[in-house]
Amino acid sequence: MSYDKAKVRKVLDAVKAAKRDSLTAPEGREVCEAYGIAVPKEGVVTSAAEASKLASSMGFPVVMKIVSPDILHKTEAGGVIVGLKSADEAATAYDTIVANAKKYKADANILGVQVQQMVKGGQEVIVGAISDDSFGKLVAFGLGGVLVEVLKDVTFRLAPATNEDALSMLDSIQAADVLKGVRGSEPVNREVLADTIVRVSQLVSDFPEISELDLNPVFASASGAIAADVRILVNFSPKPARFRPEEKDVVTSMNRIMRPKSVAVVGASNESGKIGNSVMKNLINGGYQGKIYPIHPKEAEILGHKAYKSVKDVPDEIDTAVFAVPAPLCAAALKECGEKKIAGAILIPSGFGETGNIEGQEELQRIGHEYNIRLMGPNIYGFYYTPSNLCATFCTAYDYKGSTALSSQSGGIGMAIIGYSRSARMGVSAIVGLGNKSDIDEDDLLLFFEQDDNTKVIAQHAEDLKDGRAFAEVAKRVSRKKPVIMLKAGRTAMGAAAASSHTGAVAGTDRIYDDVLRQSGVVRAKSLRQLLDFARGIPILPTPKGENVVIITGAGGSGVLLSDACVDNGLKLLKPMPDDLDKAFRKFIPPFGAAGNPVDITGGQPPQTYVETVRLGLDDDRVHALILGYWHTIITPPMVFARNMVEVVNEMKAKGKVKPVVASLAGDVEVEEAAQYLYENGIPAYAYSTEIPVEILGAKYQWARAAGLLPK
Amino acid sequence: MSYDKAKVRKVLDAVKAAKRDSLTAPEGREVCEAYGIAVPKEGVVTSAAEASKLASSMGFPVVMKIVSPDILHKTEAGGVIVGLKSADEAATAYDTIVANAKKYKADANILGVQVQQMVKGGQEVIVGAISDDSFGKLVAFGLGGVLVEVLKDVTFRLAPATNEDALSMLDSIQAADVLKGVRGSEPVNREVLADTIVRVSQLVSDFPEISELDLNPVFASASGAIAADVRILVNFSPKPARFRPEEKDVVTSMNRIMRPKSVAVVGASNESGKIGNSVMKNLINGGYQGKIYPIHPKEAEILGHKAYKSVKDVPDEIDTAVFAVPAPLCAAALKECGEKKIAGAILIPSGFGETGNIEGQEELQRIGHEYNIRLMGPNIYGFYYTPSNLCATFCTAYDYKGSTALSSQSGGIGMAIIGYSRSARMGVSAIVGLGNKSDIDEDDLLLFFEQDDNTKVIAQHAEDLKDGRAFAEVAKRVSRKKPVIMLKAGRTAMGAAAASSHTGAVAGTDRIYDDVLRQSGVVRAKSLRQLLDFARGIPILPTPKGENVVIITGAGGSGVLLSDACVDNGLKLLKPMPDDLDKAFRKFIPPFGAAGNPVDITGGQPPQTYVETVRLGLDDDRVHALILGYWHTIITPPMVFARNMVEVVNEMKAKGKVKPVVASLAGDVEVEEAAQYLYENGIPAYAYSTEIPVEILGAKYQWARAAGLLPK
Repeated sequence: MSYDKAKVRKVLDAVKAAKRDSLTAPEGREVCEAYGIAVPKEGVVTSAAEASKLASSMGFPVVMKIVSPDILHKTEAGGVIVGLKSADEAATAYDTIVANAKKYKADANILGVQVQQMVKGGQEVIVGAISDDSFGKLVAFGLGGVLVEVLKDVTFRLAPATNEDALSMLDSIQAADVLKGVRGSEPVNREVLADTIVRVSQLVSDFPEISELDLNPVFASASGAIAADVRILVNFSPKPARFRPEEKDVVTSMNRIMRPKSVAVVGASNESGKIGNSVMKNLINGGYQGKIYPIHPKEAEILGHKAYKSVKDVPDEIDTAVFAVPAPLCAAALKECGEKKIAGAILIPSGFGETGNIEGQEELQRIGHEYNIRLMGPNIYGFYYTPSNLCATFCTAYDYKGSTALSSQSGGIGMAIIGYSRSARMGVSAIVGLGNKSDIDEDDLLLFFEQDDNTKVIAQHAEDLKDGRAFAEVAKRVSRKKPVIMLKAGRTAMGAAAASSHTGAVAGTDRIYDDVLRQSGVVRAKSLRQLLDFARGIPILPTPKGENVVIITGAGGSGVLLSDACVDNGLKLLKPMPDDLDKAFRKFIPPFGAAGNPVDITGGQPPQTYVETVRLGLDDDRVHALILGYWHTIITPPMVFARNMVEVVNEMKAKGKVKPVVASLAGDVEVEEAAQYLYENGIPAYAYSTEIPVEILGAKYQWARAAGLLPK
Repeated sequence: MSYDKAKVRKVLDAVKAAKRDSLTAPEGREVCEAYGIAVPKEGVVTSAAEASKLASSMGFPVVMKIVSPDILHKTEAGGVIVGLKSADEAATAYDTIVANAKKYKADANILGVQVQQMVKGGQEVIVGAISDDSFGKLVAFGLGGVLVEVLKDVTFRLAPATNEDALSMLDSIQAADVLKGVRGSEPVNREVLADTIVRVSQLVSDFPEISELDLNPVFASASGAIAADVRILVNFSPKPARFRPEEKDVVTSMNRIMRPKSVAVVGASNESGKIGNSVMKNLINGGYQGKIYPIHPKEAEILGHKAYKSVKDVPDEIDTAVFAVPAPLCAAALKECGEKKIAGAILIPSGFGETGNIEGQEELQRIGHEYNIRLMGPNIYGFYYTPSNLCATFCTAYDYKGSTALSSQSGGIGMAIIGYSRSARMGVSAIVGLGNKSDIDEDDLLLFFEQDDNTKVIAQHAEDLKDGRAFAEVAKRVSRKKPVIMLKAGRTAMGAAAASSHTGAVAGTDRIYDDVLRQSGVVRAKSLRQLLDFARGIPILPTPKGENVVIITGAGGSGVLLSDACVDNGLKLLKPMPDDLDKAFRKFIPPFGAAGNPVDITGGQPPQTYVETVRLGLDDDRVHALILGYWHTIITPPMVFARNMVEVVNEMKAKGKVKPVVASLAGDVEVEEAAQYLYENGIPAYAYSTEIPVEILGAKYQWARAAGLLPK
């Protein structure tokens, strides 16, 4: 692809010099042509002969229009003739138009007649670009027309978009089938259309001053894609780019902060009930093995640790400072931390941006930037990093170590994370509060967790992304190695309004978040529970090696609901079941057990039937994942089922047959214990739900597909 | 509205006599005209003068076509001229068409020239009708065109549809806004369009032999709605209507079955592990106070109860017979039950329709019909009716009495219902297994629960509805008194395929279920957990008196997610908050607490802040429902919050301020106990979830709106 940047620059310079904020139609055309975006052919002629020659070179039909600075209402003047179908018609039209113009205004200065290719047929689509405060340049694609305006069926990608991104856009709209040809109409040329999208995305990326661009409509057909109308808006004074430290510097700082050799508690206290007391207790009782330095203006010792008046008095290097002083004292203390070359400040105190104290928060940011000290918060509960037994928080200590790293923008949600995690005995590597995100945000955490061997999955709650582009770029890379899950709050207009009254975050359009998160390989959770369920289940499940899912169920009724859930979660059942495999399954189940998929082993079966069928499913290489539907009976009690399933899964694992297995348990209360046992032994399982286990498997698949680990 | 039935009858009789299965275009027109459905004006003329006169009477433009049995390809013969715009053009066209026809075929028998009004402009829509095996006649509405074909944006209602139904259809399609006028186009005439829908629905209801009808397109504009094309298919040998006993007979039988004075156990057993033994034990241990008659060929006594060889030997009336004998013995035993005039047989045994033994099941149905004995099952776990302490099942006894009646088509799902109910301590009036539904089905249960004062809400799991129309009719009435909730399994094609391999049920199109259930006031659960959560929460919540919901939250982050959930669940936040009310709330919260709705009281508040704000919300008549977001802190621990909330809700209830309140609890594991306490005291509450409590409130609202209890 060759782009004539100089040509665009020249056009934009002229627009800037003229102090305009939009391009004229001819300027728009020129810009498009410079970037190889097809526009209708056109030209101005000054004789009938020229008109027929030019029109013939374009192909018919053409439209012809008078060109005269003195005639504004061309149609009224008889200066427009559409649908000209031959060289002769074009020649005649030239004479007619000029005659009409003279009749309309005898002294009009006639510069000539414009001949323009009439583009029609094919499918009307829209290709556009916008500038988003968080994500920067985005390219958009949708179908044209009234219906789409009503249905808002438009999809976005970060610009510049790759050819693959662009092709995926054609499939991401609800009405995608229209492009494939319906009612006998020809399918559009996907390559050409995708190419147009790529070129638009490159154009706005190369020229950030293009704030908005609309090709509407683009006529997409089997042969090509032509932009019939071009609208370009410009903004020559965009806001300055957000400061972004180098990735390696982020990682260095974050490692010191999250895995500190020493921690200072600014505002440590001997007084029970004080935050500075809770933080101290959590550090000590959590089992943190590094050095703890309480900072207090008067006390000599706090909870058995020698106290200092200032961090500067500590005769040792400090990595992390946890703040537990009132907001007005933070700035001075932070400065001292900076002078002490502390890597990060955990700013628990509230009373900053969230209460309208923007200035106070900006002061902290200035100090942080000046001294290269990273800020977590303010307005947070702190953080946990379990591999270091580090509870740098005023909340209670957390005790189940594992490989899930969680973060939340909100303290309340953070508490819900802690409660759920503890209740479900979810193994956690970290829980981090981000609060007002004056500095450290989700992408900083991603960079840390990316290289943290203790973390296998990252789950984040966010109300906004201060720098969506930075997040997307990092997430795209990280998510190929470790699943990244996000609960984006403020999805709805109402939610976004609540978000902005809460932390001052202005939520972007949800569709943009949805598209960009998907483009970045991030699995999006739809609800708080789903975030928690995904965080718990995804790291436990092995990555599937293919798309073929088989349901094995004792309850036919569960089989139906599990099948529904598969469709809802984008899972593909192995169908039709290969004859030999079907026959093999039938060997183990009663003659009236249902064939195919779900494999319905029927209700009254002994444990052995579950075991045999599950073993077969795990053994056969055409099966890539199993969903189990258990039905509580006297013959196969819940814990017997659970132990048998864990056994057969482990037996096959030893033989190299490692596949994701999830389970739905229908039965009396004993199934809860069985579900917990299954979960703790590698099989995400839920009592009384056919949906949740399938959602988790679906999320694992979604991640694996995005990470390129599954055949497309 | 006047309908010319005689005219339609005459057309259909002619079609039947001709052994055709579809109507010609003129026949279709005639039928439409007889029912007042507007079609383009047309007529046949035999002179140019007639042509211009007729065309003028219709209004222009018109299209004219040759009418000749000898000319099949009219266009090829030059026999069609479109877009005629004046009387003169029509006259000329007449001559041209006749001349062309003669030129094309000199000896053609020319009957005249058809003049037809050309309908154009406005919005293309589709009005149609289909015959569904379960629901019978359905009327359909959608937008015309390619996009809609792709998006399948069509809505259905039972025919005949009321005017209100028809108007609701215009709002039920995704692209509803198109009808309201977009991009400056005029809105369609809703009354006229709805009238067309009503007329179509009446037509197919009056003439069941009309199996399919399509008006496509209908041109709907500000002035009217004209069906440009009519297609009608007929079927003169429809399947006979399903037998449906009188409602009063159903209720009489169901009352005897569900609240029996005496129960026989056919196949009762002394042998532990046998189903006939489990049923006996459950009857006895469940505390059933009526008479129990074990039936056994040899035993003299079973579990302390005198046994009989046959029900016919029992010297007393029997209401309910629970079957625990193998399938092959059922028919003979059922006949004896019939002769004994037993009201109902609870057919626990499997081995019928679900295993392919259709004949065996049909035999039971014949016997049941002959002796007027109602059949529950076969292939079920039985049923519970807690007000009678009746556990007519082989499952374990159920002990939490309450007002929720549940049923399931599948045994596995039944076990999940029992397990969840027990685990959540949900008060239940009945749990019923319907299995193969050879006779008793969901609408029989609705009729019983409608008049059962022990039941306040009805929740059903179904894979199909054998008689969707009967269900819808009953549900429409019952749901106005008591909420009816349904989990329809087999929503997806994959799920439906699993359903048909499971019980032989062929699931209808899900969109039909969705529309008809909504039309019937039934709240549809999207998942098994949701069915259970709704069943538990809906009866606890008082019915709201208006749409204004207020969120009061200690965690801003929860407020955002709760707001999102409100949108997702069709709830309306009171916005903007009236000034005086806003001011009143602000009195109780810190100055940096957020204004408006959510009311963000901020995190560090004492219990009193929750109490004061909730009291205010309950007291103010402009507020109709409250959603609470709790954030676990030391200052307001979970159980303190819970007890305070229950207190203030009860305090206001005593003052006549009865409003639904739900709660989302974010915090450490102690919030689980608090949630359970809140739930048991009238406030549906969930730990670690912002979605579920709002879903429950949304479901209550959905029901209340459908039941006409809320302003529309």
